[in-house]
Amino acid sequence: MSAQTNAPSTTVAERFREVRRRTMALCEPLTPEDMMVQSCPEASPAKWHLAHTAWFFESFVLREFVPGYQPFHPDFVWLFNSYYQTFAAFPEKRLRSSFSRPGLEEILRFRAHVDEAVEQLLDQSPEPEVLKRIELGANHEEQHQELLLTDILHAFFTNPLRPAYRKLEAPLRAAGSAAPLQFLRFEGGLLEAGHAGETFCFDNELPRHRVWLEPYGLAERLVTCGEYAEFIEDGGYRRPELWLSDGWNAVQAHGWNAPLYWSSGSGEWTVFTLRGEIPLTQMKNASVSQVSFYEAEAYARWAGYRLPTEFEWEAAAEGRLITGNLLDSGTLMTMPASELVEQEVLRKPPRGKVLVPEAPVPFQRPWQLFGDCWQWTASAYLGYPGFRPLPGSLGEYNGKFMSGQMVLRGGSCITPTAHIRSSYRNFFAPDIRWQFSGIRLAS
Amino acid sequence: MSAQTNAPSTTVAERFREVRRRTMALCEPLTPEDMMVQSCPEASPAKWHLAHTAWFFESFVLREFVPGYQPFHPDFVWLFNSYYQTFAAFPEKRLRSSFSRPGLEEILRFRAHVDEAVEQLLDQSPEPEVLKRIELGANHEEQHQELLLTDILHAFFTNPLRPAYRKLEAPLRAAGSAAPLQFLRFEGGLLEAGHAGETFCFDNELPRHRVWLEPYGLAERLVTCGEYAEFIEDGGYRRPELWLSDGWNAVQAHGWNAPLYWSSGSGEWTVFTLRGEIPLTQMKNASVSQVSFYEAEAYARWAGYRLPTEFEWEAAAEGRLITGNLLDSGTLMTMPASELVEQEVLRKPPRGKVLVPEAPVPFQRPWQLFGDCWQWTASAYLGYPGFRPLPGSLGEYNGKFMSGQMVLRGGSCITPTAHIRSSYRNFFAPDIRWQFSGIRLAS
Amino acid sequence: MSAQTNAPSTTVAERFREVRRRTMALCEPLTPEDMMVQSCPEASPAKWHLAHTAWFFESFVLREFVPGYQPFHPDFVWLFNSYYQTFAAFPEKRLRSSFSRPGLEEILRFRAHVDEAVEQLLDQSPEPEVLKRIELGANHEEQHQELLLTDILHAFFTNPLRPAYRKLEAPLRAAGSAAPLQFLRFEGGLLEAGHAGETFCFDNELPRHRVWLEPYGLAERLVTCGEYAEFIEDGGYRRPELWLSDGWNAVQAHGWNAPLYWSSGSGEWTVFTLRGEIPLTQMKNASVSQVSFYEAEAYARWAGYRLPTEFEWEAAAEGRLITGNLLDSGTLMTMPASELVEQEVLRKPPRGKVLVPEAPVPFQRPWQLFGDCWQWTASAYLGYPGFRPLPGSLGEYNGKFMSGQMVLRGGSCITPTAHIRSSYRNFFAPDIRWQFSGIRLAS
Amino acid sequence: MSAQTNAPSTTVAERFREVRRRTMALCEPLTPEDMMVQSCPEASPAKWHLAHTAWFFESFVLREFVPGYQPFHPDFVWLFNSYYQTFAAFPEKRLRSSFSRPGLEEILRFRAHVDEAVEQLLDQSPEPEVLKRIELGANHEEQHQELLLTDILHAFFTNPLRPAYRKLEAPLRAAGSAAPLQFLRFEGGLLEAGHAGETFCFDNELPRHRVWLEPYGLAERLVTCGEYAEFIEDGGYRRPELWLSDGWNAVQAHGWNAPLYWSSGSGEWTVFTLRGEIPLTQMKNASVSQVSFYEAEAYARWAGYRLPTEFEWEAAAEGRLITGNLLDSGTLMTMPASELVEQEVLRKPPRGKVLVPEAPVPFQRPWQLFGDCWQWTASAYLGYPGFRPLPGSLGEYNGKFMSGQMVLRGGSCITPTAHIRSSYRNFFAPDIRWQFSGIRLAS
Ligand SMILES: [Fe+3]
Ligand SMILES: [Fe+3]
Ligand SMILES: [Fe+3]
Ligand SMILES: [Fe+3]
Repeated sequence: MSAQTNAPSTTVAERFREVRRRTMALCEPLTPEDMMVQSCPEASPAKWHLAHTAWFFESFVLREFVPGYQPFHPDFVWLFNSYYQTFAAFPEKRLRSSFSRPGLEEILRFRAHVDEAVEQLLDQSPEPEVLKRIELGANHEEQHQELLLTDILHAFFTNPLRPAYRKLEAPLRAAGSAAPLQFLRFEGGLLEAGHAGETFCFDNELPRHRVWLEPYGLAERLVTCGEYAEFIEDGGYRRPELWLSDGWNAVQAHGWNAPLYWSSGSGEWTVFTLRGEIPLTQMKNASVSQVSFYEAEAYARWAGYRLPTEFEWEAAAEGRLITGNLLDSGTLMTMPASELVEQEVLRKPPRGKVLVPEAPVPFQRPWQLFGDCWQWTASAYLGYPGFRPLPGSLGEYNGKFMSGQMVLRGGSCITPTAHIRSSYRNFFAPDIRWQFSGIRLAS
Repeated sequence: MSAQTNAPSTTVAERFREVRRRTMALCEPLTPEDMMVQSCPEASPAKWHLAHTAWFFESFVLREFVPGYQPFHPDFVWLFNSYYQTFAAFPEKRLRSSFSRPGLEEILRFRAHVDEAVEQLLDQSPEPEVLKRIELGANHEEQHQELLLTDILHAFFTNPLRPAYRKLEAPLRAAGSAAPLQFLRFEGGLLEAGHAGETFCFDNELPRHRVWLEPYGLAERLVTCGEYAEFIEDGGYRRPELWLSDGWNAVQAHGWNAPLYWSSGSGEWTVFTLRGEIPLTQMKNASVSQVSFYEAEAYARWAGYRLPTEFEWEAAAEGRLITGNLLDSGTLMTMPASELVEQEVLRKPPRGKVLVPEAPVPFQRPWQLFGDCWQWTASAYLGYPGFRPLPGSLGEYNGKFMSGQMVLRGGSCITPTAHIRSSYRNFFAPDIRWQFSGIRLAS
Repeated sequence: MSAQTNAPSTTVAERFREVRRRTMALCEPLTPEDMMVQSCPEASPAKWHLAHTAWFFESFVLREFVPGYQPFHPDFVWLFNSYYQTFAAFPEKRLRSSFSRPGLEEILRFRAHVDEAVEQLLDQSPEPEVLKRIELGANHEEQHQELLLTDILHAFFTNPLRPAYRKLEAPLRAAGSAAPLQFLRFEGGLLEAGHAGETFCFDNELPRHRVWLEPYGLAERLVTCGEYAEFIEDGGYRRPELWLSDGWNAVQAHGWNAPLYWSSGSGEWTVFTLRGEIPLTQMKNASVSQVSFYEAEAYARWAGYRLPTEFEWEAAAEGRLITGNLLDSGTLMTMPASELVEQEVLRKPPRGKVLVPEAPVPFQRPWQLFGDCWQWTASAYLGYPGFRPLPGSLGEYNGKFMSGQMVLRGGSCITPTAHIRSSYRNFFAPDIRWQFSGIRLAS
Repeated sequence: MSAQTNAPSTTVAERFREVRRRTMALCEPLTPEDMMVQSCPEASPAKWHLAHTAWFFESFVLREFVPGYQPFHPDFVWLFNSYYQTFAAFPEKRLRSSFSRPGLEEILRFRAHVDEAVEQLLDQSPEPEVLKRIELGANHEEQHQELLLTDILHAFFTNPLRPAYRKLEAPLRAAGSAAPLQFLRFEGGLLEAGHAGETFCFDNELPRHRVWLEPYGLAERLVTCGEYAEFIEDGGYRRPELWLSDGWNAVQAHGWNAPLYWSSGSGEWTVFTLRGEIPLTQMKNASVSQVSFYEAEAYARWAGYRLPTEFEWEAAAEGRLITGNLLDSGTLMTMPASELVEQEVLRKPPRGKVLVPEAPVPFQRPWQLFGDCWQWTASAYLGYPGFRPLPGSLGEYNGKFMSGQMVLRGGSCITPTAHIRSSYRNFFAPDIRWQFSGIRLAS
């Protein structure tokens, strides 16, 4: 059985509205100028995310299922296509930062136009395929919500003034020590993996299939910033024997010496977050984040462990309650659970509805399965046996990226709770660091 | 004697105010989002130009000559430094597109703050060095006015929607033929070059010095789009024997087959301008622009001529009236003189005051010495004998770029009239194409 | 049980001598100048292969197990190290083409020196670990034999004169049609994979472990040049929907339009081989080779099939006789079996001992499991559950490359028969094309 | 009047033979393997130089002037073309290191074939144009002699073993101090520059033309290694204010911290030369060499001087005796004159005929005009007024490189005496360092 979700049962219409509303809410702290920035090739401007998510509904719902639907603007059909080769032409990704026109105001009208048309469609008791497409569109938009935040974090990090997306009202307490690292034992055997049941999932989570697992151990919690600092201290970034060959090449080529957002200009490490620059001393029990697969893998070797496979992770997570430091908690950063309840930020939730991240509790071990940060696995991102991409252009959604990437599991502090599940497969190239990506060890 | 200027004699204060006003006027058609775009490594966002020109006055006038002056913002001291290594640190140029903060509104306050402080300083009968620095700052800002327009033209060209900076009210008339190309004969001899007199000039125009010129001919007018189209038609971009070796390499590497803003998607050539996309048929008598030195040089070889040296150009221009299709004409594009007087655009001047570009007249031959577009010369940009850069950080203004660049002369349709003179030396690398740079032949 | 080998049971000493002899024999057609060429970043000069394989025995056998052993030359210790970071410094790979000194003659003395010392060691009834290391060194040298030939093929392809490594005495017969493509059905289930038994294998083939396989089909033979030509004909290289995203990017970036060694300058396709340039018409029933994983994967999608996983391949191959068009056949190229027996090349074997490649026979289906060319699988190259690299510097042999690469199985027409087995894992990055790498389909 | 040459008056035939002989003599210390190395994009393998210089005579003498001449090999016509686009196709330069075939032996036969055919032509009292072409071919070959040596020096520097082209029999004496740097005064005025008279020169030295020079000073000798070490010591490579902008970028991009062949691994600087690695302490009075224009220019600024223009240099050199530490001295490295006479290397001259470099003598000031190393000038490499390239493909010899390069004057310790003259213009891009290029200051 697949993971339970603690999101209340909602109709598709409510889910659509809620997702669309949240995207707008996430943009609240941003100026139209902020929404123009594209600070690295992987990122897109926030304005583009706003437009592209509307484009998705227009392209795959409205134009396919509303007879006579007129696109909001004929050029938007190709202008906001991301990478669907079989759908329409699309501009080079790097040009997105030049789209000062259409202006934000026009993009917002595009979104309103699409919202209205989808609502009308929903009013007409549409066929099940329509509901499935809208559900897909909502999930697509949630992915872009996470990207919007990771991209704006990079944009603000690139800005020499280092503005905060949302300030922290009070400094974090410099906590004591994290719980000692312990491993939970799993028996393995001939198990099933992949999404089960009729609820929504992406094509890459299917088909559910059998896998054989040898017995294994999984760390109860994620690796903390404090532990990662010891790796650095111990020469982790200077010792080739700890690294995969490609990883060591990346260290040399990019001059890596710490996670992406760590700085040590002033002598002490600081960590740049959506809540501004924070001294490492205040973050030491929070999960280390913004590390590449290579760094995760090297850390594991240094620590005497390894990374879990995606199936080891999934077997431990299946059936668990979806709870943790996710976007709904409003923390917007990785945090030690003990900190969370006392923070001012949690008493003034951004959107009125906050799921206080659970303190680690015995019945939900391992902790931090969901939230805080995505967890690199030892598994390459490949199709499951019998994998079939969605038909048509939507087949390009996931399948064509099945080479050169590694799977991450579990979601992050900026992943919506309703978006995640135990069979969910995130994937990035092994040298990518701008996501909330961290480390869970296995033995 | 140096060139006369037709700008009315103004006090420094009037000049300061006029320049600062014009910068703001040039931004009128732009949104805050437009002002974020940096669409190629050579360009900067318009907002950055606004800030940097204020920074220049703050750094080299206010902080040096106003006792106790407090910078508007301590970070702006280095944030808006362009390349003055001995002045302060500065961010990498490519980061300028990430400066969503400070927002435009704060930049405008920065400008107002600087304006006020300069006005106060001017009220106090400052020493001559202060007036010279303010004059330098005004000239600096005029250079950035031109850059702001070339950069926004590139930004709009990069945007797949191809917006116009300012629309053309009526199509240009498809004119007949340009005047046949004729050459004026000059005797050369032992002449003087470089700025003479006490009026403002840049350090690189000094010292005035003797040069020996053999007799030479100079084309009466610039090469037109129509003539350049014949070069293309004749295989100009496919024949290595017409090119310098580096030029041919550039053609191959970048796939050049026409000037930067020419497109032929629809079968017919169009030219993208600040007034939108215009059919080549309407531009054929206007000067070709946005060509690299390599293209200018290859065209000259194909046509059986050569490019003039900067001294040949200067000898022909010295003492002439500064008149032509310059920024003050409001055309914002290269145009055949016959077109200009009839255009709607000239009857609705952008800022109330328009100098109608002179029709070619016998007493001002060669024509188009000033305006339409900068004219590539055969001269490398090097220091004159006895060249001394300005003292202090301002010494980095021009001197450190004296390698790898070629001199252009004459100004363009977006150069302020008050900014240009016969001794003025513009310079760009030989593969640079985003400026209003065209071709005058010599024999 | 692991695969049987048809190599006669030999003592380690005989194996050592045989391998070392063969390396020298492969160099026979080469001049000292040929042995200097390094024509792409992946390749090494033949001379370097000669030296490096001697270095391996010196470093991991002689220096460890012969008390008081003096290296042949103190600089060779690091000069011919390839990538063992924990062993010694090593020169950048691209510098290998600058090693004109030491000259070939000195390298040959180095080899003789090492041979003699190994023989002496073998005379002294060494401990089992010594024998294992010599066996490892022999396998290492066999890998470099294959690389030496792939590298020299690339070197000769890069030379505009296109010399042949060894000429073909008679043209190949333009054969009829290949056998129709049929698929054999396998039941899958809970199987074991990885090397079994006490015979030699690399660390990456261990530990033997259980895998679950769903039922699957495997093509009886490899994809032929003729079939691949149809893919090209059908626009295979121009249709993004057939490709992985990274694959399509590679097609665009490198301008791929055929396998690496296919040329069509003269209108008809030719294929460059170790036996010179051969018309495609003579090769159409031979296996297509020198394709990247991306091309293999796109071909499979176009054909309506997929690539097998490495475990599907291994399950089909385990226990089979090691026979096929391997290096011992002396063909040096992929060939249709029917051609082989009649060729002059086979009647004049290069080293007196030729295993005539078996004709496809019913009891050895699928055909071409071993030889002709390596077969790209759908499996990323990762460690098996419980994988442990060899101790010490030898741990860098295979383990540190476990990211970003795909597994190939089966060996090629230049793989020694004694070198290959059903559990053997070859691996290359998905864009690599200079190996003898081809396509077996699965369903 | 142009410079005198101290080469005895020779017939063209003698000159041809002498040049061809010398090329072979220069290869004496090299193995066929050495002659394969191409260790940087600027360089070519020695074997290629041997072939290309024969190709030049075959292409521009034999094929044009010997009726019915059959090329030695039809493929050599394009294979050994360097860059003459209008003559024939040519292979990419980087492929030259793959030309193991044709082998050296065949190249030598090519040379013998060409030699014989040229001799036969010379026997037939050929027309003057033939003699001029042979003279051009001899000068071309002398240029490649210099390149062959600079390329082999780079090849040996790239080899981690650092072999010497020709060993130094005895260490150099660690000399005292160089003569104090003094400047000679020149009056300038309206002078003539460019080659005069009927003797051979390249097209880029013509036409002789008038130039105006202001009075100037020229350093009596070149900058020494010892002086350059002070620049390094004083932070020369860490102070942006000393550099042209492009120069500083090059320092950063390449990590320059000393001349190309200086190393400090062992704590003390050493200088790699054609005579092996030599401690800087023994070289401190020799001219610094293998510096880029950027370094020369920065050094001059640091020292409070500037570089001379090419015309300032030429005016000082015209009419002087061609004497100095040139190739004929056999030193093969920059040396203080006082050292030269005592060296073993000078008592065992490589080819029997040695011109002992003149000690600095009052009647030949400034010293070191010719030899030791080429002297960067402040002049960009451009055509003289009225410049006409040679007709036909030979027009590509010099003219098409007239952009992006700086002029060097004077010759080096590996330039043949017969090759150099006061009007000679060498040219390289400002970041090029692998030539014997040094610094003469001007004031
Ligand atoms: Fe998307
Ligand atoms: Fe500026
Ligand atoms: Fe090896
Ligand atoms: Fe040449």
